[in-house]
Amino acid sequence: MSMIVNRRDLDFLLYEVLGLGALLQAPRYQGHDRASVAAVLDLAQRIAEAAFAPCAAKLDATEPRLKDGRVALIPEVAVALRAHAEAGFFAAGFPAELGGLQLPQVVTLLAGGLFSCANPGIASYPFLTIAAANLIAAHGSPEQKARFLPPMLQGRWFGTMCLSEPQAGSSLADIATRAIPTPDGRYRIQGAKMWISGGEQEISENIVHLVLAKIPGGPPGVKGISLFIVPKRRLDDRGAPGEGNNVTLVGLNHKMGHRGTTNTLLNFGEAGDCLGELVGEPHQGLACMFHMMNEARIGVGYGAAMSGLAGFLYSLDYARSRPQGRRPQDKDPATPPVMIVEHTDVKRLLMAQKAYVEGAIGLLAHCAFLLDLQQVTEDPKARARLSRLLDLLTPIAKSWPSEFCLEANKHAIQVLGGAGYTRDHPVERFYRDNRLNAIHEGTHGVQAIDLLGRKVAVAEGAALSDFIGDTERTAEQALHTPDLWRHAAELRRAVSVLKTTTERVLAHPGAERRLANATLYLDAFGHVAIAWIWLRQALAAVDGQARGDGADTAFYQGKLAACRFFYRHELPKVFAQLAVVARLDDTCLTTTPDQFIGC
Amino acid sequence: MSMIVNRRDLDFLLYEVLGLGALLQAPRYQGHDRASVAAVLDLAQRIAEAAFAPCAAKLDATEPRLKDGRVALIPEVAVALRAHAEAGFFAAGFPAELGGLQLPQVVTLLAGGLFSCANPGIASYPFLTIAAANLIAAHGSPEQKARFLPPMLQGRWFGTMCLSEPQAGSSLADIATRAIPTPDGRYRIQGAKMWISGGEQEISENIVHLVLAKIPGGPPGVKGISLFIVPKRRLDDRGAPGEGNNVTLVGLNHKMGHRGTTNTLLNFGEAGDCLGELVGEPHQGLACMFHMMNEARIGVGYGAAMSGLAGFLYSLDYARSRPQGRRPQDKDPATPPVMIVEHTDVKRLLMAQKAYVEGAIGLLAHCAFLLDLQQVTEDPKARARLSRLLDLLTPIAKSWPSEFCLEANKHAIQVLGGAGYTRDHPVERFYRDNRLNAIHEGTHGVQAIDLLGRKVAVAEGAALSDFIGDTERTAEQALHTPDLWRHAAELRRAVSVLKTTTERVLAHPGAERRLANATLYLDAFGHVAIAWIWLRQALAAVDGQARGDGADTAFYQGKLAACRFFYRHELPKVFAQLAVVARLDDTCLTTTPDQFIGC
Repeated sequence: MSMIVNRRDLDFLLYEVLGLGALLQAPRYQGHDRASVAAVLDLAQRIAEAAFAPCAAKLDATEPRLKDGRVALIPEVAVALRAHAEAGFFAAGFPAELGGLQLPQVVTLLAGGLFSCANPGIASYPFLTIAAANLIAAHGSPEQKARFLPPMLQGRWFGTMCLSEPQAGSSLADIATRAIPTPDGRYRIQGAKMWISGGEQEISENIVHLVLAKIPGGPPGVKGISLFIVPKRRLDDRGAPGEGNNVTLVGLNHKMGHRGTTNTLLNFGEAGDCLGELVGEPHQGLACMFHMMNEARIGVGYGAAMSGLAGFLYSLDYARSRPQGRRPQDKDPATPPVMIVEHTDVKRLLMAQKAYVEGAIGLLAHCAFLLDLQQVTEDPKARARLSRLLDLLTPIAKSWPSEFCLEANKHAIQVLGGAGYTRDHPVERFYRDNRLNAIHEGTHGVQAIDLLGRKVAVAEGAALSDFIGDTERTAEQALHTPDLWRHAAELRRAVSVLKTTTERVLAHPGAERRLANATLYLDAFGHVAIAWIWLRQALAAVDGQARGDGADTAFYQGKLAACRFFYRHELPKVFAQLAVVARLDDTCLTTTPDQFIGC
Repeated sequence: MSMIVNRRDLDFLLYEVLGLGALLQAPRYQGHDRASVAAVLDLAQRIAEAAFAPCAAKLDATEPRLKDGRVALIPEVAVALRAHAEAGFFAAGFPAELGGLQLPQVVTLLAGGLFSCANPGIASYPFLTIAAANLIAAHGSPEQKARFLPPMLQGRWFGTMCLSEPQAGSSLADIATRAIPTPDGRYRIQGAKMWISGGEQEISENIVHLVLAKIPGGPPGVKGISLFIVPKRRLDDRGAPGEGNNVTLVGLNHKMGHRGTTNTLLNFGEAGDCLGELVGEPHQGLACMFHMMNEARIGVGYGAAMSGLAGFLYSLDYARSRPQGRRPQDKDPATPPVMIVEHTDVKRLLMAQKAYVEGAIGLLAHCAFLLDLQQVTEDPKARARLSRLLDLLTPIAKSWPSEFCLEANKHAIQVLGGAGYTRDHPVERFYRDNRLNAIHEGTHGVQAIDLLGRKVAVAEGAALSDFIGDTERTAEQALHTPDLWRHAAELRRAVSVLKTTTERVLAHPGAERRLANATLYLDAFGHVAIAWIWLRQALAAVDGQARGDGADTAFYQGKLAACRFFYRHELPKVFAQLAVVARLDDTCLTTTPDQFIGC
């Protein structure tokens, strides 16, 4: 078995759950079919297994370091990224007119996940580059697109996103980086940016920083933020990287995990003029940046799911091959020990991993598919509905996997016992890597406020109504399916409580009280969404079993078991959480700073 | 504020919750009073802050390594342990006739926790030594006690426990180490032992390994296990460490965290005769070893709580001093940012840490106090009741903190955001350290089977009845206390569901089905126990407030808030868990190994 992918599961999601087959009939995707999609995934798997996975442990043990003012990375990183670029994976999701393969986003997400599962530290560079290129494609001028996109899509220049600052963190209203207009229409950028992944490296020919900064005289707070392209090296007359642009590496952050990606503190314009060019309109920078941030949030969620998957596959393989102990009804020490996968508590640890990881992958694939459906939907109203749904689900798709696939990684260590706690096995690394995902690209708490403070409230709750409609269609179908009708009823009950809880909270006049338990709400909403995803997968599994020749029986039965696990062991938790939210519990809100330890 | 202890909380537990004042009146503790106990804690704090805490980060970064066949540790470890030994902390809990201070166990637990909070890697050495010495004191011959206890209690010789083997892990029935009788009454030990903490180091003059092995011809399985004292160096005629005893270091385990303690694979008798002496009767070794294991389990639980406390204190201090962002009702960017402790979601992360950590400390202090009460209780029936209660609570006291104080450490990282994920702050280290505790000294799953498969069933459920009686007394008292009567009713309901669930499960005839959800049961039982602990603390806080002059108002209000948090946010989770247990859910049990990924 592969340690980075269950290809059967990806095919199941694409063709049996989402219906990629029908999407590929659309003119936009002509030239693609099931065979070409499989070829893309095959190629990704080959490169990921050959160039990304083998150096993952070494990269973790040999984190990026400063050497003579430059960043040293082990040479395998550049080799892997070259293979990735040469295979065309930077461009895969872009439209043909930009030199891309015009693949559906769901395919590029899943293909990218193979690299991320094999080595998240290396996979971050193309991930950020593609997101930056997408932003330029959406908001850049034709001239900016012409200069920056070709080298980025060829994987010769990498991209970054520069939002946080040392003093500001999540509080973008307080960023202090300034952009001072120059006579030629460009801007002199001055300030420091913190937590910049890929902010410095020697692999790509240039680095394209997308920087949030304030033009003096603009409105205060987030309304005065503009977006700039700031290359590490200025472009010469032919558009090639030329002289330095005074983006200075101040320091590297030394992290618990995710060590393959350089993470930096950068200074712009300290050593001399640092020139940037405006993207979009002045003071509209945050809206533009959200284009990149939303994509990055889906990507972070998928990265979390991939770390979870890596742990699930590894611990499953270990559990099937490690003999130890006997079953409770057979304690005779003369009998041979069983494989530990036979112990029910090990099965529980594996089943929880499966339910979390495959549930998360299912939700994220659904989100990417919403993007694809938007591309082929003519009706503006239907398109707006798809866009709303994606907006609603984005904070969940970012946060739920970050929380529960980390829990999956905790379980993977537990399956291996003491061995899992050592660096002889990779599961401790997956756990360390995954802990980042609830922090970057907007913390768990920031996502919660986005969901409850914004997403469920916009357009009089239209997005939530749309989501509920989707769950109801699935429940309706499952009600008529033996074995699944109970789950359908449970999903309806959870959705109903979610709805009344939301209404009750939104009706409260005080913003602080309304948001006091937003994180509980986010977690509970996530569980409801994943329950819905599992019911869809269960319906597809029932169909598959009815259709199949028996070769896939274990696969489909595993899906039904994981669905049952989620409905029995996980979904019931949401009622206790939503009760706290619905009562607008003020326990945390009213606690004063001196009460935590009494002084 | 101290980063390793909240002394006000320890005094609260000792004198306002447990009633140490009354215990100290017993003849056994004459010579000890509140002032002398405070002096012991002061001394521990001084040494822990001066010698243990400052090198914790360095020890983590410089893990033990092999150098010319010996283990190299940074020199600060030996310095710290010398200070610890010279202050008398190895002997503190032992009876006066053995040269100890005869302090109550609850005091030695709390004092030991200061070292553990400051530097768990160093604290493990005395922790294991004291547990090994306790075993020898309980089961060794007078002659063994005379030879081994003085140097151990002086901190000159350290101890280990050698149970696991590479092929056997948790399955002690399958250990293969043999003990072959020699004519002089000693035994030649032959075999390999894995995961031996402190198994090799150059700090102590000798190492006293307590080794489980099988005497050939004995009964199969665990009934044929005997216990041996196996010194690293044989004792010469004067009892001093002499020639080597052929205990060979095969390798060091390189762990994710907890790196200050050497963790080893040892070989006994490979290079020549390795001589051991029997402790207790042949084939009764496991029962003797449980003396050490039970103490170690309490110690592991307390270590988990101490890592949790370290993260709580650090993140609280950070949250009170880091300005960032504004409250929801005040988004004007012209106003200055608030300290992040003012954000409700940060308060939630701190409150959950407080509820988990101080709840765990409370449970563990209660367990140690049960030992002390046994010492001063004459009535055999009452003593048996205390012993039963401790047996029942031991798997919970080991497991619940390992699970939920790890969750606390996860929250501590989240409070710091990106900074918490870097090695510039210690919270990521606490998280890595704490992940061990659900694994060693019997995994989470092993504790669960101990609780549901053994402890709640023995003596027709006498221990569970005793525990329920204790909770009922607390509930009865709280029912008559304004503010707390609601919690009392909730505790009663949870205890009642726990009771009926237990009865229902135990009535099922099949062992495997009965134990299928044992871990859920363990976690839920733990939550009920901690809810009881919090209600006791809340009652003491109400008393304290009524009595007090207002100086402690914030402390007591914090206790009441944490109790409220636990009853509102945490306790309600148990009903969903217990419902799964009560229905004898077979989802995990019936899943076959091929269904996890379908192949």
